[in-house]
Parts: sequence; C-alpha cells; structure tokens
Amino acid sequence: MTKSYLELRSTITEAGTLRIHLESVPLPQPSEGELLVRIEAAPINPSDLGLLLGPADMSTLTAEGTAEAPALTARIPQQAMPAMRARIGQSMPVGNEGAGTVVEAGSDLQDMVGKRVAMIGGAMYAEYRLIRPDACVVLPDGATAAEGASLFVNPLTALGFVETMRAERHSAIIHAPAASNLGQMLVRICKDDGIELVNIVRSPEQAELLRGLGATHVVDSSAADFRERLEQAIEATGATLAFDAIGGGEMTSIILNAMEAVASRRMPEYSRYGSDTLKQVYIYGSLSTEPTILKRGFGLCWSVGGWLLFNFLRRADPSVAQRMRERVTAEMTTTFASHYTAMISLREALDPGTAAAYQKKATGSKYLIVP
Amino acid sequence: MTKSYLELRSTITEAGTLRIHLESVPLPQPSEGELLVRIEAAPINPSDLGLLLGPADMSTLTAEGTAEAPALTARIPQQAMPAMRARIGQSMPVGNEGAGTVVEAGSDLQDMVGKRVAMIGGAMYAEYRLIRPDACVVLPDGATAAEGASLFVNPLTALGFVETMRAERHSAIIHAPAASNLGQMLVRICKDDGIELVNIVRSPEQAELLRGLGATHVVDSSAADFRERLEQAIEATGATLAFDAIGGGEMTSIILNAMEAVASRRMPEYSRYGSDTLKQVYIYGSLSTEPTILKRGFGLCWSVGGWLLFNFLRRADPSVAQRMRERVTAEMTTTFASHYTAMISLREALDPGTAAAYQKKATGSKYLIVP
Repeated sequence: MTKSYLELRSTITEAGTLRIHLESVPLPQPSEGELLVRIEAAPINPSDLGLLLGPADMSTLTAEGTAEAPALTARIPQQAMPAMRARIGQSMPVGNEGAGTVVEAGSDLQDMVGKRVAMIGGAMYAEYRLIRPDACVVLPDGATAAEGASLFVNPLTALGFVETMRAERHSAIIHAPAASNLGQMLVRICKDDGIELVNIVRSPEQAELLRGLGATHVVDSSAADFRERLEQAIEATGATLAFDAIGGGEMTSIILNAMEAVASRRMPEYSRYGSDTLKQVYIYGSLSTEPTILKRGFGLCWSVGGWLLFNFLRRADPSVAQRMRERVTAEMTTTFASHYTAMISLREALDPGTAAAYQKKATGSKYLIVP
Repeated sequence: MTKSYLELRSTITEAGTLRIHLESVPLPQPSEGELLVRIEAAPINPSDLGLLLGPADMSTLTAEGTAEAPALTARIPQQAMPAMRARIGQSMPVGNEGAGTVVEAGSDLQDMVGKRVAMIGGAMYAEYRLIRPDACVVLPDGATAAEGASLFVNPLTALGFVETMRAERHSAIIHAPAASNLGQMLVRICKDDGIELVNIVRSPEQAELLRGLGATHVVDSSAADFRERLEQAIEATGATLAFDAIGGGEMTSIILNAMEAVASRRMPEYSRYGSDTLKQVYIYGSLSTEPTILKRGFGLCWSVGGWLLFNFLRRADPSVAQRMRERVTAEMTTTFASHYTAMISLREALDPGTAAAYQKKATGSKYLIVP
C-alpha cells in the first residue's frame, strides 16, 4: 500500500489567482471509530463548484505545472474578492460526496473492511478519505461506486424539500428549474407520495422529459404564456412553497406574485396589505450569483430564504433524517438514480477544457470523478 | 343628533382614476355589544396611504366636486393598475386607527357612554364609527383624543418587533430608517427593557435626535463610512434581526451582508455556504414600492419576509397581545407619545396641496385628521 495519496485542492491567493492542484497527503492509519475508504467515484455537483472554482473568470483558465504535478489557474475578478476574504491562502479540499471501498478500519470496525460505502463530508476529490461511519451508508451488494456516488446531496435535498413542506404545513411544491437530476428525483418522489408538484422548466424538451417521468404540472418559462400557465398550475395545486435553484434574477419574484394573484382571487374582500396566505420561496442552489430582484406585488405575508441541506439536517428531527437515509438506500437505482455525462480522472479535472465543460451547470450535464 | 354622517372614501375606476370623496352614510343605532363613537382624531399613518392614495401619480392631483361635496382625483399609472384589480369600483373607507368619545351604546354597554376610547379597525376617517369594545381601549381620565389617536399602529408595531425578537430567539434589533415616530418609540422601549438596538438613520440631524432620546447605536446611512459603522454596531450588539420600513432598494441586502461579515469573522473555518447564523430581515412598511435588490453575499442561512401587525397579532399568543395593549395604555404620554405636524379636517384632507404634503411620508411629518 502507498504511503501517500493525491487530494485535489483549491486555493485563492491574496493577489486574486485561483489555483487548483493535486496535493500529496500522508496516508493515515484509521483509529478506533474510523474507516479508511479508497474513493472510486465522486460527482461534481453544482454545490461543489462554488468551492472548486469560486467566482473565477472562466475565460482565463490556464494549465500550469507539469504532467506529473499538473495545476489549473484562473483569475478572480477584483469585485468578487471581498467575498473570498475568508478563504484566501487556504488550501481547500473539495467534493461533498462520493463512494468507495473500505480498505482499512479501526479495531472496532473490522467488519466494515471490504464493504462499499456512500459518503458525505467533503474532501472527496481524492484517492482516499478517512471518515467516521455515521457519514457513510453501506451500499447493497453488487452496487457500483457510480450508483452510490451521488446518494447524499441530490436525494437528501429532494427529500428535504418534501420534509420542509410537511414541517411548514404547505401542501404542494413548486420547483424551478425542474429538469435537473435533482428535479427528476423530485418528480419521482412526489409521484410516489401523491404530492402535487409544479415543475418550471426552460424549454419544451425539458417539459417533454419531465412529462415522460410522470410529471403532471410542467410550465415552460420560455413560453409566451408562462405567467398565465404558472398561475393556473398554482390554482390547481394550491402551492404556497417553492424552491428556486437559480436565485439571481426575477424567478423568485415571479413565483411569489403568481401565488399572490391566486390567493387574492380567493379573498372575500380587498385588503391593501394583500392576502394573509403565507407564500414561501427558498433559494437553495444559488446557481446564479446575480442579485435577486423582488418586485413586491405580493402583499406582506411572504418569506424568501436560503435553504441548505446541511442546515436542514442539523435542525431536523433525527427520526426524519433517518427515514430519509433509509429511503435513499432502498431506492438507489430507481427514484435516486443519477446519470452522468462523463467520467474523468482527478488529473482530467484540472484540464482547462474539461473544467470549462463541467462548470457550465447545464441541466442534464453531470460529471463524475473517478480517482 | 344628525341622521347621517360623513365618511371619507377612496375609489379607483376601471379607467385608472383615483377619486376621494366624502360619503354621506346613515347613522346606525348600536345593537348589543356595539358602541357608537364620535371620532375626534385619526392619524394619517404611512400604512393608511396605500389605501387612501394607492399608487396615484401625485403630479395629477386635482380638486373636483363642490365646496359642499368636495372630491380629489388623480391618475393611476397604467403599469400600476394590475395590482389594483381587486379594488376597482369599490368605495373604500380609510383610516386604520383613531380616538373619540362613545356617544351611544348597546343596552349591555351603557356604562361606556361618555368615555373616550382609542380604536383600531379601519374607516376612521369619518365623523362616527360603530365598533365593538374589543377593538377599543378606554383612555385614562383627562387624555385627549390626539393623545389616544395613534395608540395602536405604531406602539403595537414597535412592541411587536420586540416580541418577534423574543419569539424567534434573536437578542438585538436593527431598525431602518429609525427616526420615525415608530422608531422613536422603539428607542424608548429598548432603552427601558435593556435591549440592544441599532438605529439606521438618514442624516446627522436624525442621529442627533435619536441620541437625544438615549439611543446608543446610531448609524447614518448618508455617511461615507456607513457600512463599516454598521458592521461595528452589529459586532457590538450581536444583532441578527432587522426591520426595514422601506423595502425597495438595497438596504435589506446591505444589512444582511453586514450581519454575515460579522458572523463569518467568528467562524472557526471557511465554508463556501457562509455562516450558519440565521440572519432575518423583515420588510414592514414598504414605504418604497421599488424592487428589493438582494445581493446575496450572505451565505444560505438567511430569511427576508413581510411583517404586518395584523398578521402578527392574529398569530401571537393572546397573553402577549394583552401585555402589549396594557403597556401601550400605561405609557401613552411617555414611551408612546406621537407628535403631529398639522391637524386637518376631513374636507382639508381632500385638498390637493394638503394631500401632496401628507403623502410625502417624510420622517417627522405626521398629519392628524380631526373630523
């Protein structure tokens, strides 16, 4: 066995340079309560890109270093530097989730050796990961690493939306944009659970895709009658809760205004304060860092907030979190199956052309790192 | 006693004309459980202006009608009409709160006749109001109608901020802009109760005014070092809750970013998702109908929402609401004293020049209607 392993690191310098390289890290020996996992697959989720590439100007991507020790650099625009203050000079490991095989374990966990596990916890873009068992789920026999690699972030987020709906006493969900891997999972969950879901997509092709999965309410934001259709779907479902993966621009505002238009039509008399129906939108992915523009034609009974899986899990009842994990494992190859555009090595992740491709965050494009 | 009385009404026509006039209304006879109050004073709060004048173009104010039956008209800009849809053609009474003397009462409430009361419930810009006792508070002996006229909206809103802080487990409050009548009440409440309050004002004169009332943390948004000072005040107070009366523009966003800057300095390590400190801003007055611009440099643990006194009271524990009312009456002439720029009659409220003046919503300018 080797005495060291490679781990991808992202660093931003005081001068505004992003640098990604592979760091050679001493291979640790697991103590009691620890597992050493050889990582076999780790997805590049939109939520990883913020740490991996930050707000780098993608037109400045440059290959540096040697074939042996490659590196990727890019410029950070000056105006984005203040928000980076807290990470300047820190060599940050990246990768929220992944899957691999337990190769060594503490004396109390010897029965785990040889098992394939899904993991969450960061630093997954690496050849190995020392981890505690409560951040792992043992995969069913015969499951591949690719099948288990994306078993946390998207599945738990989709289930977290449903649990949030229940906890906050809404009865239906709006999701925008809805054709992502996560969106497809949400369509399947809501179909199985009998929850009304309004899917906002960005093209007729995406609408087609979701209808093929059994989605009932699909509204295309590129259509001329988008707002009218959105109101109709809200009328039909009674949705007062939405999750917006973009955040920037006006989608959050458009959804709130459509909810209010429906609610105000049901009011017995006019109130200049708007309806007293609570309208909630969560911004969860922040795929756009542009400002959120709220055109407040939706009264005073509304809320817009950030939604983060890790915060949700920390505050959720442990039984809810347990129920979510069990379902994810049980439905790994059905509800929660992910599809990948390409599999790349750690070294390939540092190639400028490849980085430009996986950074696009385009719906339906998803990369898997196989260290 | 007259057989009819005058009540101010605001109507918006399909064609986009706002019309304010005085309607002659039959004087009702109070039944059991009802009081008839002769209204002696009713303030024009910012919260009344939305119904009274709507989004009218103030440059088009025109006097119409006769001296006997005056009217005021103005144009509603075309783009503002969709939001007015629900009130088109309805003759709406106006005026959230007021004070007056009980002149008649149902057989079960005869002991109330002759008492002076403060009231909430709408339709206060009128000579009389039929009302139930639970929407009234009997004023102390010797209290004037002017003293009791503004005893609900501003005082209960200011106390509602403090109760919201307690209920949502924050420990300090930021208020912007803070030099209003309401803001001055909040300074006094927080001083008495030992609550840390950050006051954002818009001029050195306003800063002076609040310091004179005993405010400790006053930050002037017109100063060059505003954002730095705001962060310092947040650092000193630990404020994670703010109330923004404007809503439009960037103040909400500036406050959230300052809270996050302080929270992130306290984090043991960098997280690309930002701090896990919940940062909450409520928009309560919506004095500006311009879009709210959120420049999301504040992570994913945040919430922005509407705050409305009536919704708060409906959801609050009855003992909390009772405690708030008792305090308001007890501290009527101290903590909750209001100051008026001018007293005007119902007819004067229909004068274009006067309307232009009371519509300005300027800090320190407040009108009282004395029917």
